[in-house]
Amino acid sequence: MNRYENIKSCNIEELEGIASEIRNKILETVSKNGGHLSSTLGATDLIVAMHFVFDAKKDPFIFDVSHQAYAHKLLTDRWDRFDTLRQFGGISGYTKPSESSYDYYCSGHSSTSISLAMGAAKAIKLKGEERIPVAFIGDGSMSAGMVYEALNEMGDSKYPAVIILNDNEMSIAKPIGAVSKYLSQSMASPFFQKMKRGTAHLLEHLPEGATYMAKRFEESLMLITPGLLFEELGLEYIGPVNGHNIEDLIETLEIAKNLGRPVIIHTQTTKGKGYEIAEGTKEHWHGVSAFDLETGKSNKKSSSKPATTIFSETMIDLADSDDKVVGVTAAMPSGTGMSAVMEKYPDRFWDVAIAEQHAVTSMGALAKEGFKPFCAIYSTFLQRGYDQVIHDVALMDLGVTFAIDRAGIVGEDGETHQGIFDISFLRAIPNMTLLAPYNENSMKEAMEFAKEYSHPCALRYPRGAFTAPDSKVPAYTLGEAHLLQEGKEILFIGYGDGVGKAIETAKLIDQEIAILDLRFVKPLDEEKLKELSLTYTQWFVFSDSAKMGGVASALLEFVSENRIQGIDITSFEYEDNFITHGNTTLVEESLNRLPEQLAQRVTQRI
Amino acid sequence: MNRYENIKSCNIEELEGIASEIRNKILETVSKNGGHLSSTLGATDLIVAMHFVFDAKKDPFIFDVSHQAYAHKLLTDRWDRFDTLRQFGGISGYTKPSESSYDYYCSGHSSTSISLAMGAAKAIKLKGEERIPVAFIGDGSMSAGMVYEALNEMGDSKYPAVIILNDNEMSIAKPIGAVSKYLSQSMASPFFQKMKRGTAHLLEHLPEGATYMAKRFEESLMLITPGLLFEELGLEYIGPVNGHNIEDLIETLEIAKNLGRPVIIHTQTTKGKGYEIAEGTKEHWHGVSAFDLETGKSNKKSSSKPATTIFSETMIDLADSDDKVVGVTAAMPSGTGMSAVMEKYPDRFWDVAIAEQHAVTSMGALAKEGFKPFCAIYSTFLQRGYDQVIHDVALMDLGVTFAIDRAGIVGEDGETHQGIFDISFLRAIPNMTLLAPYNENSMKEAMEFAKEYSHPCALRYPRGAFTAPDSKVPAYTLGEAHLLQEGKEILFIGYGDGVGKAIETAKLIDQEIAILDLRFVKPLDEEKLKELSLTYTQWFVFSDSAKMGGVASALLEFVSENRIQGIDITSFEYEDNFITHGNTTLVEESLNRLPEQLAQRVTQRI
Repeated sequence: MNRYENIKSCNIEELEGIASEIRNKILETVSKNGGHLSSTLGATDLIVAMHFVFDAKKDPFIFDVSHQAYAHKLLTDRWDRFDTLRQFGGISGYTKPSESSYDYYCSGHSSTSISLAMGAAKAIKLKGEERIPVAFIGDGSMSAGMVYEALNEMGDSKYPAVIILNDNEMSIAKPIGAVSKYLSQSMASPFFQKMKRGTAHLLEHLPEGATYMAKRFEESLMLITPGLLFEELGLEYIGPVNGHNIEDLIETLEIAKNLGRPVIIHTQTTKGKGYEIAEGTKEHWHGVSAFDLETGKSNKKSSSKPATTIFSETMIDLADSDDKVVGVTAAMPSGTGMSAVMEKYPDRFWDVAIAEQHAVTSMGALAKEGFKPFCAIYSTFLQRGYDQVIHDVALMDLGVTFAIDRAGIVGEDGETHQGIFDISFLRAIPNMTLLAPYNENSMKEAMEFAKEYSHPCALRYPRGAFTAPDSKVPAYTLGEAHLLQEGKEILFIGYGDGVGKAIETAKLIDQEIAILDLRFVKPLDEEKLKELSLTYTQWFVFSDSAKMGGVASALLEFVSENRIQGIDITSFEYEDNFITHGNTTLVEESLNRLPEQLAQRVTQRI
Repeated sequence: MNRYENIKSCNIEELEGIASEIRNKILETVSKNGGHLSSTLGATDLIVAMHFVFDAKKDPFIFDVSHQAYAHKLLTDRWDRFDTLRQFGGISGYTKPSESSYDYYCSGHSSTSISLAMGAAKAIKLKGEERIPVAFIGDGSMSAGMVYEALNEMGDSKYPAVIILNDNEMSIAKPIGAVSKYLSQSMASPFFQKMKRGTAHLLEHLPEGATYMAKRFEESLMLITPGLLFEELGLEYIGPVNGHNIEDLIETLEIAKNLGRPVIIHTQTTKGKGYEIAEGTKEHWHGVSAFDLETGKSNKKSSSKPATTIFSETMIDLADSDDKVVGVTAAMPSGTGMSAVMEKYPDRFWDVAIAEQHAVTSMGALAKEGFKPFCAIYSTFLQRGYDQVIHDVALMDLGVTFAIDRAGIVGEDGETHQGIFDISFLRAIPNMTLLAPYNENSMKEAMEFAKEYSHPCALRYPRGAFTAPDSKVPAYTLGEAHLLQEGKEILFIGYGDGVGKAIETAKLIDQEIAILDLRFVKPLDEEKLKELSLTYTQWFVFSDSAKMGGVASALLEFVSENRIQGIDITSFEYEDNFITHGNTTLVEESLNRLPEQLAQRVTQRI
C-alpha cells in the first residue's frame, strides 16, 4: 500500500529521487484532473524531509489548508489512488482522516494548523507520550488572526511543537501586509537598518582592535533579525533555510525535533518548483483546471460566463459611476473577480490578505464614513467574519454589501468549501437583508440595488455560471419577489441559482407550474406570497442552501405566523450532512438534486 | 449639554481637576448602578488627554470594547444623564452612536478598534480630510487575532492613525499569553538581554573614548526594544508612557498626531486608579454590581444559584471522575465559572486569553486525541469561533462540548452581548447536537450526557439563575424530550430556560396545559412530537433565542417534512431586532415576554 514504506532508510540521493518522482506524479495527475499545483510542487522537498525525520504514523502531521499536501498523500498510502484526485468518489484534494489514518485532520480553511498543534501538544503532554506535533504552514496563511491567537499561547506555554513555515513569498496572490513584507524583507527592515547604522556609526569611532568584535556583533544581529517577530512571541526560530535542500532540511528538522520547545523553522521555497512553466509567482498556477503539460495551456472549454465574471464587470461599472463605491477581498482577488476592479481602482479596492474578520470590520468603518463597501467573500470563508457581520456591521445598520461568491456546491474542493450555511447564519441577524440573483441581468440589478441600499445586505451567487440563461428582468425593489410564470396548484419558489433549477425542473413535468423568483429571503414578499397562497397550495423550494434555517424554513415561519392554512411546503435544499467533493453535477446527482431527479421528487410528493 | 466644552483651553492643573471630578462621578454612579469600574478609572487620565489633543467632533474616537469609555461619555454630552448608566432606557455602558454623535461606533466585543481605525483612515484619505482616527485599546484585547489582521494591513499601508495601547497588565483576569508577557517584560526579554550582553561584551573591548558612543547605542536599544513587535509590523512605536501623567500624555499624543503615519503609543496605567480599594489587579473590580463606596462590599442580595455556578461545580465533578475531561475559556475564567476548575486542575483547563478561534480549534485537536473538551464560551462570543466550530470540530465529528453561557437576555450589557443567535447559527451545522437544561439537576444531567457523547454538542444556559426551581429529572438520552405534565389541546414546548417560563406562564392560565421539556432542539424527539400532535394542536414555543431559524422554526420544519396536519405553532422567541440593555425583567417586559404577558398572548392566540 505504502510505496515509500522504507523512506527512513534512504540516503539523500534516494530522497531526492523520491521527491522528483512525486513531482512528476503530481504534474501528471493535476494536468489531467486539475488541482492545486505550484504550492504542492514547492512543498515536495520539505514534505519528503518531514517524513524522513518525523513519523507520520504517530506524530501529528498538521498541514495548514492542506492543498499543498499532495506529496504527503503520495508518500503514505495513496499512490495507487492518486489518479482519482479531487474526482467524485476519489481522494480529496485536502487531508482527510476518513481517507487515510496518515491524515491527522481535515483542513481546507487556512491558518488553523498552529491551534491544532497547540491542542495536540497539550494532549501529548497529558498522555505523557513521545510524539511531537508538526505544523506545516505557508506564508500566505500567516495573515489570519487565529495564527497569532495560537502563537500567543504557544510562545507562553512552551509545549514542544515544530512549525514549518513554508515561505514561498506568494500566498495565493501577491504577498500582502506587514508580516509578508517582514518575512521577505526582514534583512532590509527599518529596525535592521537602524541597527546597522548604529553599528556602522560605532565602528567609525572604534580603534582597529574592536572592529572584529563589532563585526561579529553585526553578524549575530543579521542572524537574529528575521526571526525577531517570532522570538518576541516566545518561540525559538531557525532560518531561513533553503526548502529545496533536503540534506539541510533534515539537519534542521532534527534539531527542531529535539529542542523540547516550540520552534518555528523558516524555509524558503519556490512555488511550482520542478515545472518550469509554473515556477515563479504567478497566481494562475495556484489552483488550475486540467492543462497541457507541454505548453501549460488550459484544456478548459469556454462555457457560459461565470457569476464571478458578471460580478467583476458590474463592480467596475458601479465603481465607474459612483466614487463612493469601495470594496475588499480577503486574499481572493482572482477568485472573487476583484482583481480587475483593484487594477482599475487601486485606491478604492483592497486585498487585505487572509483576514476575513478585519475585512468585514474595516468596511464597516468605511460605510460609517459614507462609502458603499462591497465585501466579496466566498460563502464558506464568510464564516470567519461572522461575529464581525453581526457586531460591526448589522448592529450599526451600515450599508455594507456582502457579495457571497461560491454559494452552493463548489465542486472539487468539497466538504471544507461548500457554501451552504450562509442563509442559516445570516438570516437571524437583525437589520440584515438577504437577496440572490439568478442570471446575468438579475445579478446586475441585484448589485445595483445593493449599491443604493443603505443597510447591510448579502447577495449570494454560485461558483461557475448561472443555471438560467440571461433575460431581461425588472429592477430590484426591497422585499419584492417576481413571478416568472403562472400555473395551476403547484408553485416552484426559486432563490438565486435555485430559480434556474426550478425552471429546468418545471420543463420536465407535464403540468403548468408557476415559478416565483423569490429574490429576497429576507424580507420576504409577504403580500405576494399571501396572494399566491390563494391559488397555489403545493410549494416547492429550490435553493442551494442548507435546509435547516434555510429558505423553506423562512417560508414556513411566514405561513405559520400568518396562519395561512393548507399550504404544503417541500424543500429541495441540502440535507443535514457535509457534502463530498467532485464534479458538481455528480455531487448534485448523489444528492438527488438534478432536474430529472427533482421532477420525480415533485411527482412523488403531489 | 457638554460640561467640558472648553477642555482645550484648560491648563494641566485644570485637566487634572477634570480627571478627578470624572473619577468621582464614575465611582458614585457605578457604586449605585454597577458597571465596569477598574478599567474605566484607569483610563480616565488618558481619555482627558485624548480629548485635549484630538477633536471628538471630527476625529473618530474608537474605543475597543468601550467598557472603559465612561470618561469619554462624561467629557462629551452625558454628564447629566450619567446616573442612568446601564439602566433600562438609560445610557449604555458602551459607546453607541444613537446615544451621542460623539460616539463613533457601537462596541462591546473586543479587538475591533484597529480594524475600524484602518477603515476610517482609508475613508479619510479618500475624502482628503484633515482628521485622524484614534483607537483606544487595552492590553487584554491584544490577544485576539483580528488585531493582527488589522495591524498587518496598517503597518503595510502607512495611513495615518493613532493607536493608544492602554496597558494595565490585567485584561479582565490575569495577563495571558506571549504578547502580554512581552508587553510587561520586554525590558527583560531574551532578545534585549542578548543585546545587552552583546553590548557589554563590546564595551569590555573598547578603549575609554568609545564607551560614550556604546552607552548611547545601548540606551537607544532600550528605547526601541519594547516596541519591536510593532515596529516589525511596520508601525511607529512610542512608549512606554505613564498613562496617569496628563502632561506627558499630551506631549506624546501631539507627536503622534503629527506623525502622518500609523503609530502605537504604549501607555502604562493602574486599573482602578483613584479608588484605593480597587487599585491593583483584582478581576473582581473589572465589572461590578452595586457596592458600598466606603467598604467596597457588594450590595447584591444573595439569590438562587446561578447557572454558571452549577456549571462550575458540575465541571469539577466531571473532571474528578474522568481524567479525559479538559476545558478552555477565552479570557472569562470567572464569568464562565472555569476559574474554580482551573484552580483544581491547572494542567487540564486553560485560559487562552481573548482568542475564541484558537480556543475552539485547539480543543478540536484534544478531542481528536481522545480527550473530552468543554469549551465554555458566552453565546455572543461563540460567534467569534463560528467557522472553527464548523471546520475544526463538526466536520471532524469530534466530541467537543460547547458550554454556552449567557444564552438569552444578558441584562445591563445589552445589544452587543445578548446571546440570542446561537441556535440559528449552530443548528444548520451537520453532526452538531443541540441541547439545553432548565434547572440545576437537568444541567448536571445535560453535562453528564455531553461528557459521554462522542460527537459535537452545544448546551446553552442563561445568565443568572434558572427560572425553574430544582427538581429530580431523568438522565438525558440523545434526542429524547421529556413531558413534564399533560393537558388538553394546548402544549407548551420549552427549551432551556424557556421551560421555566412555560411553567410560570401555564400557572397563569385557567386551563390544563401540557408542558414538554424539549431538551434537544437537534435532533428533535420526532417520535414523541408525532405522538403529541395527536392530542395537542396548539403548540407554543418558549425559548430565549431568535425566532428566525430558532426552536419553533425547527418544529415547523419537522411538522412540514412529516406532513403533520392541523398543528398551529406559535413562537415566543425573540423578534428580529437587536435588544437593548437594562434590567433583564424590564427588557423582557418591553418585549412582551413576562409570564403574565405571555399568558395573555396565549389566550389571544387560541
